[in-house]
Amino acid sequence: MNRTLDEVAKLIGGRVVGDGSVVLTGVSGIREAQPGHLTFLSNPKYTRYLRTTRASAVVVDGSCQDLGAAGATPLVVADNAYAAFARAMGLFADGHRPAPGVHPFAHVDPGAALGRDVSIGPCAVVLDGARIGDRTVVHPGAYVGAGAVVGSDCVIHPNATVKGPSVLGDRVVVHAGSVIGSDGFGFAREGDAQVKVPQIGNVVVEDDVEIGANVCIARATVGTTRVGRGTKIDNLVQIAHNVVIGEGSIVVAQVGICGSAEIGKHVVLAGQAGIAGHLRVGDGAMVGAQSGVTKSVPAGEQVSGYPARRHAVSKRLHAALQALPALVRTVRDVERRLSRLEKEGKC
Amino acid sequence: MNRTLDEVAKLIGGRVVGDGSVVLTGVSGIREAQPGHLTFLSNPKYTRYLRTTRASAVVVDGSCQDLGAAGATPLVVADNAYAAFARAMGLFADGHRPAPGVHPFAHVDPGAALGRDVSIGPCAVVLDGARIGDRTVVHPGAYVGAGAVVGSDCVIHPNATVKGPSVLGDRVVVHAGSVIGSDGFGFAREGDAQVKVPQIGNVVVEDDVEIGANVCIARATVGTTRVGRGTKIDNLVQIAHNVVIGEGSIVVAQVGICGSAEIGKHVVLAGQAGIAGHLRVGDGAMVGAQSGVTKSVPAGEQVSGYPARRHAVSKRLHAALQALPALVRTVRDVERRLSRLEKEGKC
Amino acid sequence: MNRTLDEVAKLIGGRVVGDGSVVLTGVSGIREAQPGHLTFLSNPKYTRYLRTTRASAVVVDGSCQDLGAAGATPLVVADNAYAAFARAMGLFADGHRPAPGVHPFAHVDPGAALGRDVSIGPCAVVLDGARIGDRTVVHPGAYVGAGAVVGSDCVIHPNATVKGPSVLGDRVVVHAGSVIGSDGFGFAREGDAQVKVPQIGNVVVEDDVEIGANVCIARATVGTTRVGRGTKIDNLVQIAHNVVIGEGSIVVAQVGICGSAEIGKHVVLAGQAGIAGHLRVGDGAMVGAQSGVTKSVPAGEQVSGYPARRHAVSKRLHAALQALPALVRTVRDVERRLSRLEKEGKC
Repeated sequence: MNRTLDEVAKLIGGRVVGDGSVVLTGVSGIREAQPGHLTFLSNPKYTRYLRTTRASAVVVDGSCQDLGAAGATPLVVADNAYAAFARAMGLFADGHRPAPGVHPFAHVDPGAALGRDVSIGPCAVVLDGARIGDRTVVHPGAYVGAGAVVGSDCVIHPNATVKGPSVLGDRVVVHAGSVIGSDGFGFAREGDAQVKVPQIGNVVVEDDVEIGANVCIARATVGTTRVGRGTKIDNLVQIAHNVVIGEGSIVVAQVGICGSAEIGKHVVLAGQAGIAGHLRVGDGAMVGAQSGVTKSVPAGEQVSGYPARRHAVSKRLHAALQALPALVRTVRDVERRLSRLEKEGKC
Repeated sequence: MNRTLDEVAKLIGGRVVGDGSVVLTGVSGIREAQPGHLTFLSNPKYTRYLRTTRASAVVVDGSCQDLGAAGATPLVVADNAYAAFARAMGLFADGHRPAPGVHPFAHVDPGAALGRDVSIGPCAVVLDGARIGDRTVVHPGAYVGAGAVVGSDCVIHPNATVKGPSVLGDRVVVHAGSVIGSDGFGFAREGDAQVKVPQIGNVVVEDDVEIGANVCIARATVGTTRVGRGTKIDNLVQIAHNVVIGEGSIVVAQVGICGSAEIGKHVVLAGQAGIAGHLRVGDGAMVGAQSGVTKSVPAGEQVSGYPARRHAVSKRLHAALQALPALVRTVRDVERRLSRLEKEGKC
Repeated sequence: MNRTLDEVAKLIGGRVVGDGSVVLTGVSGIREAQPGHLTFLSNPKYTRYLRTTRASAVVVDGSCQDLGAAGATPLVVADNAYAAFARAMGLFADGHRPAPGVHPFAHVDPGAALGRDVSIGPCAVVLDGARIGDRTVVHPGAYVGAGAVVGSDCVIHPNATVKGPSVLGDRVVVHAGSVIGSDGFGFAREGDAQVKVPQIGNVVVEDDVEIGANVCIARATVGTTRVGRGTKIDNLVQIAHNVVIGEGSIVVAQVGICGSAEIGKHVVLAGQAGIAGHLRVGDGAMVGAQSGVTKSVPAGEQVSGYPARRHAVSKRLHAALQALPALVRTVRDVERRLSRLEKEGKC
């Protein structure tokens, strides 16, 4: 769908600098862009590409100091270039959406309740007592178990598994291969044997949550494992039983959160971080990549390393560690000089 | 199903203190419990909730010192409160189990052999030469490959993949999305190319093993990748070709075990730990979360950190590291004082 | 299929030492081998098994010093024993391959284009606009999305998901449960909300790539996420949007690569390593297990640890850290001696 730059700028909330009548045919990255494309600049590292891009227009931050670098290329100046560009991408994305209806190769149990305009793909399975809201898409090979509740305008991608009695809110996206509501890992040791602790709680995923591919969210032992409204979860993340995550948090790929940990609102857990069980990461905290969090983190704090410490402390320790071989040499030298002094003193 | 506290205590192996005639309708956590619920206390951290819980009865350890805190709430005193409560949960869990039979939307090859009362869900696939034992459930979308053997009373959850020629014992549970018996990662470098080493061994999973969601267990190059009786594996774990795990071990989420490593009996590998190839972790050893095990661990030892060392040593190193910036300052001060002394000596 | 040792040696490129007329019936590991089996020795650690193996013949490296240890057992001497044995395994592997054709329980959209002798298994789904090359196998439960392109002689294993518009070359293997082309993790923060950045790029997987089980490769935000020719990826790996991996690289299990990182040719990323976004790992570099790479790595360099440093430096730091408690004691002793000297000086 082609649009002029003026139209696009209006729809994404930006101000045109230059010729607003150029026709845009698509969006792309600043290095890959072709004539007709809209691109964007948010990372100052890439400012040099402003001169060489073949794009027909560039979205830039209002704070950008180097607008001159664009030469004759028209700009869209926005408060938040990345967010504005995200909206532009939405304008040009192909709106491919499966047709509503139950595919003849799907299995929907007669005891399941489907809303209006629901789409159930081939080889998808929806079992007894499941409830699926209006306009939700269940892609091929996905599974919605007995008693599971999926809200409206959700997308359950191929081969994902939503077990009952999980409850998903509206506009929830579950990417391919993810498993919501499998058993928590609970065993009670008796002698040499591990007795299974039945897992009879559920998972609640609130509105506007997005869950990446091959993620695991375990149902609670009793009670609820909860992911708060608007939280975004990347691929291959493990969320154990009875974990509670607040609203608007970001959980990057391969993070693991142990049982009963509480993650606050607007928290960022960077890639491959691990959070021990039964502790709390406060609102707005940031946990660095690969960190191992072994005790609670106060709200607003940045931590990193293993065991995770305040980021400033971690950095200081790493610097000291880096200088350790030199310190060893210094101490050896000091010892030698001291021994000499001691001998001289004896003379 | 409602039962009196006296009945429940008898079934789970505990002694009632207080009114055994109260009627129980369910189980839940100590904070979430409602009237009619049985709950439990095993972590002394939560003793304070004994006063405020709305539960109708609480399972406590015989060792619990604060029984007085329960006030009028009836108790069940057990040797192992958690294990006793696990049994209570089993009493109240809904026994939902798919009906036996092959769903018309499943594909079972005529060359597969199914035991009595097997249940094969819609969109599940069982191929030629597969053998499935009595009462085993293959959930929707799961796959049992050509020549795979699955024992009796097993549960293969939705979208799990059991490739031939894997062999699963009795009462094995494979959670959703897991892959048993895919190729081990074997390539032989010849010049710049990587020549695939065919993986022709198998996977053997012994009786009473439980495997979490989205786990990968690779088939052996030649021989067998083996998971011993009663071992429990959490979500997103990687078990490479020719690994051998003993009986009754615990492998927590996101652990990775490299090729040909041998893990003993009753070992605990905590979350995100990595075990290098071709080494041995002895019986009863414990490997801390996020540890990197680079050499064999003797039986009974606790190790942690990267590279993994005896836990006591790791703790000492972390404490010394924490004090390193202070040590740097001390050494600088010592140097200064020493230089002064040296100068004075010269005078 | 039985063959004489002479035949096998010719086919795998080796020279027979001993009786070339022995008949081989299979291949196996040196410890498990039975009469009739061919085995191999490449790790000198296992030379002692040469005396005790029951194998009928052993493939050894030309460089092997201990051929005498084999006694009467015939040998095949090869330049690269492991690669030669890999070829031997191929000779003896059962060539099980699903019959060509579309299974009646599969769903192939009329708008999809299938090459010659393609095999589509039961409960597999191929959507509109997908193109699948000659002799490619799509196993049961796998999904090839709208507009996806899969080359010739590929294998898409059970329950794998290849979303459109991904493009796979020839002879690509995708193991079970993997997800190619799900959305990259892109959100632009606006106030407290996370605005989804539509992901409209694709994934390109070049010829001869093998992708393990439960791997995730995200489609690019714009442009392409690319895996180069002949690269091999192990299980549970995360490859984020816009990552580019060169040819012939090895990515071991549970590695995570953040957005827009560039990995060169013939790179090795060992297990559980993490690579931060927007940096470059040069050709031929090696990244140690569990390393955290936070800045670019020059070509040919070996790095390890967190943050990743040159491997030699990391080893020195670990050694210094190991000696840190002793250093603390030394400094304390030096301080004491210095104080004494200072006092004496005052006398």
